[in-house]
Amino acid sequence: MAGRNADYVLHGYFRSSTSFRTRIALNLKDLPYDQVTYNLRSGEQRSEGYLQRNAQGAVPTLQLPDGSHLSQSLAIIEWLDETHPEPPLLPQEPLARARVRTLSYAVALDIHPLNNLRVLKRLRSQFDADDEAVADWFRHWVAVEYSALERRLAGETETGRFCHGDQVTMADLCLVAQSVNNRRFDVDERPYPTIRRIVETCLEREEFERALPANQPDAD
Amino acid sequence: MAGRNADYVLHGYFRSSTSFRTRIALNLKDLPYDQVTYNLRSGEQRSEGYLQRNAQGAVPTLQLPDGSHLSQSLAIIEWLDETHPEPPLLPQEPLARARVRTLSYAVALDIHPLNNLRVLKRLRSQFDADDEAVADWFRHWVAVEYSALERRLAGETETGRFCHGDQVTMADLCLVAQSVNNRRFDVDERPYPTIRRIVETCLEREEFERALPANQPDAD
Repeated sequence: MAGRNADYVLHGYFRSSTSFRTRIALNLKDLPYDQVTYNLRSGEQRSEGYLQRNAQGAVPTLQLPDGSHLSQSLAIIEWLDETHPEPPLLPQEPLARARVRTLSYAVALDIHPLNNLRVLKRLRSQFDADDEAVADWFRHWVAVEYSALERRLAGETETGRFCHGDQVTMADLCLVAQSVNNRRFDVDERPYPTIRRIVETCLEREEFERALPANQPDAD
Repeated sequence: MAGRNADYVLHGYFRSSTSFRTRIALNLKDLPYDQVTYNLRSGEQRSEGYLQRNAQGAVPTLQLPDGSHLSQSLAIIEWLDETHPEPPLLPQEPLARARVRTLSYAVALDIHPLNNLRVLKRLRSQFDADDEAVADWFRHWVAVEYSALERRLAGETETGRFCHGDQVTMADLCLVAQSVNNRRFDVDERPYPTIRRIVETCLEREEFERALPANQPDAD
């Protein structure tokens, strides 16, 4: 960002959903960051240099101004919210916080870990899965969880312009990153009108739009 | 627990790792709870009655004294910690909290979602995976993540008697539930001496021991 020094360095990859979530959070908190990219397809995240920053060999890692490193996107987002409270990414009241975390985890625990690159690769190597079988697997888990999530979001009065009320929360970050990823596997989102409305509302915001995979320096 | 009224009802299953984590948290917070069991093998968690409590059709769900319901074990644990702060399951300082969450998610996001019952069933139905292939899949993800976790826990000065210092945190709950689950798939934990030491230290505590799958009323 021209004219502003970046105190943070985000080690990530343009297409990684977890990097995408983290970029949105940094943008919403108005924290400038530089990016270092690791091509997950060629395994750059398993280089010795990167393993020093992140023992799991996974993206993203956020390098802090003091040189320390944080990993796991949800832990980074919670840390950002605790140390830079405005605008909040979690509400104040404990039951409301639990609802936002539950919605976040319905995507971040129950869809994304099953559908990320290393898992799809393992399906190919262990079960000889072809492109169509991999796409079926991906779409299966999205359908299971998006059906339940749509029912919740459509049926609960806490849902507003966003997943929880009229302010963006961590749940929206997870949902938008998943839905953008879904496009690569031709997921039919017509059965999920509430999810679609929320994702579209988010993507009208500059902080989300600027974080999109296609808008990163390493996009191919 | 004889002589104490249970204000909470835990809807779960003895063998579910996420129910196990939640039982440990309730025990550590000294909150009495009744249990209602759903046999995941026969699909009881997808009954219409249970879906009213939990739209995802997943265990656990914690029913609160006011009759409302919380789902997703990590969201429940964070809620318990916010509303019943003693003993804390997360440290106070933001960087320390981030470390505990990162260690928790290395298990709860990067191992468990790949290895739970619904996923193993899907491997059987979509790829004709047999028992041995399913066990290979399970052990693969444990090996990848436990190797990285062992390196972190053994190498970082923040590690103490437990994953983070000398107090039990959310990370220990996730780790113990995973390691107990690993026994069912004959995972060789000899390469992970730090993890084994922490798990054994935890299991010496009554709150962990009482939460073990084998010690639940619905254990078979």
